[in-house]
Amino acid sequence: MSDDARRARWERSGEWPLTVAALVFLVSYAWPILDPGLDAAVVTALDVVTWVAWAMFAVDYGVRLWLAEHRVTFFRKNLLDLAIVVLPLLRPLRLLRLFTLLAVLNKKAGGSLRGRVSVYIGGSAVMVMLVASLAVLDAERGAPDASIDSFGVALWWAATTVTTVGYGDFYPVTTEGRFVAAGLMLAGIAIIGVVTATFASWLIDRVREIEDEASEQAPSKRDVLRLTDEVRDLRRVVEELRSQK
Amino acid sequence: MSDDARRARWERSGEWPLTVAALVFLVSYAWPILDPGLDAAVVTALDVVTWVAWAMFAVDYGVRLWLAEHRVTFFRKNLLDLAIVVLPLLRPLRLLRLFTLLAVLNKKAGGSLRGRVSVYIGGSAVMVMLVASLAVLDAERGAPDASIDSFGVALWWAATTVTTVGYGDFYPVTTEGRFVAAGLMLAGIAIIGVVTATFASWLIDRVREIEDEASEQAPSKRDVLRLTDEVRDLRRVVEELRSQK
Amino acid sequence: MSDDARRARWERSGEWPLTVAALVFLVSYAWPILDPGLDAAVVTALDVVTWVAWAMFAVDYGVRLWLAEHRVTFFRKNLLDLAIVVLPLLRPLRLLRLFTLLAVLNKKAGGSLRGRVSVYIGGSAVMVMLVASLAVLDAERGAPDASIDSFGVALWWAATTVTTVGYGDFYPVTTEGRFVAAGLMLAGIAIIGVVTATFASWLIDRVREIEDEASEQAPSKRDVLRLTDEVRDLRRVVEELRSQK
Amino acid sequence: MSDDARRARWERSGEWPLTVAALVFLVSYAWPILDPGLDAAVVTALDVVTWVAWAMFAVDYGVRLWLAEHRVTFFRKNLLDLAIVVLPLLRPLRLLRLFTLLAVLNKKAGGSLRGRVSVYIGGSAVMVMLVASLAVLDAERGAPDASIDSFGVALWWAATTVTTVGYGDFYPVTTEGRFVAAGLMLAGIAIIGVVTATFASWLIDRVREIEDEASEQAPSKRDVLRLTDEVRDLRRVVEELRSQK
Repeated sequence: MSDDARRARWERSGEWPLTVAALVFLVSYAWPILDPGLDAAVVTALDVVTWVAWAMFAVDYGVRLWLAEHRVTFFRKNLLDLAIVVLPLLRPLRLLRLFTLLAVLNKKAGGSLRGRVSVYIGGSAVMVMLVASLAVLDAERGAPDASIDSFGVALWWAATTVTTVGYGDFYPVTTEGRFVAAGLMLAGIAIIGVVTATFASWLIDRVREIEDEASEQAPSKRDVLRLTDEVRDLRRVVEELRSQK
Repeated sequence: MSDDARRARWERSGEWPLTVAALVFLVSYAWPILDPGLDAAVVTALDVVTWVAWAMFAVDYGVRLWLAEHRVTFFRKNLLDLAIVVLPLLRPLRLLRLFTLLAVLNKKAGGSLRGRVSVYIGGSAVMVMLVASLAVLDAERGAPDASIDSFGVALWWAATTVTTVGYGDFYPVTTEGRFVAAGLMLAGIAIIGVVTATFASWLIDRVREIEDEASEQAPSKRDVLRLTDEVRDLRRVVEELRSQK
Repeated sequence: MSDDARRARWERSGEWPLTVAALVFLVSYAWPILDPGLDAAVVTALDVVTWVAWAMFAVDYGVRLWLAEHRVTFFRKNLLDLAIVVLPLLRPLRLLRLFTLLAVLNKKAGGSLRGRVSVYIGGSAVMVMLVASLAVLDAERGAPDASIDSFGVALWWAATTVTTVGYGDFYPVTTEGRFVAAGLMLAGIAIIGVVTATFASWLIDRVREIEDEASEQAPSKRDVLRLTDEVRDLRRVVEELRSQK
Repeated sequence: MSDDARRARWERSGEWPLTVAALVFLVSYAWPILDPGLDAAVVTALDVVTWVAWAMFAVDYGVRLWLAEHRVTFFRKNLLDLAIVVLPLLRPLRLLRLFTLLAVLNKKAGGSLRGRVSVYIGGSAVMVMLVASLAVLDAERGAPDASIDSFGVALWWAATTVTTVGYGDFYPVTTEGRFVAAGLMLAGIAIIGVVTATFASWLIDRVREIEDEASEQAPSKRDVLRLTDEVRDLRRVVEELRSQK
């Protein structure tokens, strides 16, 4: 078995354990943020769980790097994966693993490409807003002058940011919170872009369908193949003619 | 008559009564919001009217569920309809029934797909802004620190929100008002997306038309069919040739 | 000469006088707004000029309505023109006539459809921002609590609004100013939509061109016609064959 | 050698020196902005370096104008280049030369048109935000009531502006700073447009590919050419038949 096949098998078999790890990470990450008056012992326990989930991500990255045929190429193409494991600032991004769940949901939904893009973007928007709300609340709480001090307010702030409305009634004041905000803004622009693009694609196709019905149709491959058969038949007739001589 | 045909008939015959119910609901919903000093007796009367309209929606949902051939499928595909009937928070969404009016207007307008999309999006934008203004005013009025305290201000707030400008001179401070705002932001992004997509579709078609005139044309189906006739004629000639022998 | 031909001639010959009237209107509209300490006599003179320009627009509308073959149709299709003449609130929209200048500039520039759309949208954006700045300054100046009190600030406000950034450092507080703002927001969304659509159209065409070069080409009409000639020649040969018998 | 060929050679050989000049300009422009307490002697030295870089740009423009075959056309088509050299306000735009670096990076990356557009837009967004942050900090620092007073805050402001979120926690108050902001807003709209357009183009192509596989295929040029060969063969056979007589 080649290294690449081995790596593919590893990735397939690791999909579910890592998704579970991400879910566990979500709980142990979100709980102390949502409940600031948590018992110290619980916080410690959740901390341990967080580290175990981290270890799983780190081991997964290491094994994949080790199994890759061209390690330099793998390294260069998976910089984000490395950054998520190594940089504490990007810790919330470990929850990106949960997109696997979305992919599974999507496969079950089946349907057209546009339908699947819609499900994906809807799910991503909700997930990104939740993660950003948690991350910004984690960063802001405790900072002097911070206005984002509860999960409800953080969610509301995330909604005004991801839609680029930006009232300015709440905004992050810490460096870490501002990085979260910048990521959320990027996500917002991507979401707006995808919504627009999906509708544009639908509209362009619908207009074309209507036009196709109305105007002269282009010949189909089948038309040309039928014509080719016709000519081949003709040739056979003429060859018979020759042989009769 | 099959159940599905019966349901279709029910939906067709219920279209207008429900639109009228939605209009009546609009009046009895909007009046106490617009005129906070309304006489208590009138408020009670309007409340009764609101409940009657609600009963019509509830009965309609029940009959449609009962007539559906596959009730589980119907239930799953009409979750929004159920939510509008059951959840008091989604009460303003009962006005979505008024889109029937828009559909009728649109059918009369006729014209191209893009034209109809434009009418639809324009009408939807106005309707969504009106409903959101009423709903946010209903939610905010009376809340301490609320700045949205008149219908004019609510409309202005809706305009700055739906266009994602978001000055921040007015914004909701209650949970219910913020849900209304989130819905309006979503509507705003959808509207921006549709405006962009409609123009993109128009521009792409126009550019293609100009290019089609300028460049070598693709063969039309008619060209290929004419060629096929030509070959068939040829075959007949050759077959005559053979039979003459 | 038919009525419609007469109307077309009237519109053609009225194009330049009305553009000049709009320019004169711009000056007499903008001057008192930009220089609030203007001498009363000058203000009166400019007022007279404004009324003369208005009279020209009104006469133009009247003559076009009178010359129209189907007056009801003309009336329904030119509601905006009527509104601009009749409603004092829409007075700044009389400057829309200046778009004629843009059209002339554009015709001189020539070039591709996308190029012309770009020129048009650039010119429109500048013009809309200028007119909105003047109109909002006119509406806001003198209002208590108004923050937009100079043309520079009005221009800056227009820039933050048309791009939907909406910092909220300046915003209109009067009803008339808010209508101007709503118009500017709509223009902003239209401009963003057109910018996006223009680039999308360009990108889609470029990608298609590259793909066309790389992939199997579709047959051109010329290819099929050449084939048809080929078959026709064959037929002639076979018919000669028959006649030789 | 013609003048145009000479100009092309000049531009090719000047590409790298001018990029280095832009880099040097970046350092000597950014340093005093980032470190306001810089020693006066260093400031003077950096000023000299800035002027040398400026001289290089000015000489480059002069030589290109002198070598151009049609100087008036060159002048009209390169108004931005002239403005960057002549207007002190547009000084930060001299850094646009650094886009050459982006072009080189892009050429190395290779890949599809959409891929290259993505790299370009990502790089441009980062570069535009950096330059706008420096420029706005330069303009605002020292102004009374200015809130943008550090590079971190300037970067955060640039992020909220370029994504059109516009919280309004920070905004420029000087005329020069507002011009920088207007430029950044324009860049933001362009970036949002390009992101949307790139995704739309991708989605439209993907939908078409899937449809092409599912539906009747259009005939390829090769199919028609094969048919033509078939007919030509037939003709030869018939001509042989004739000659056998």
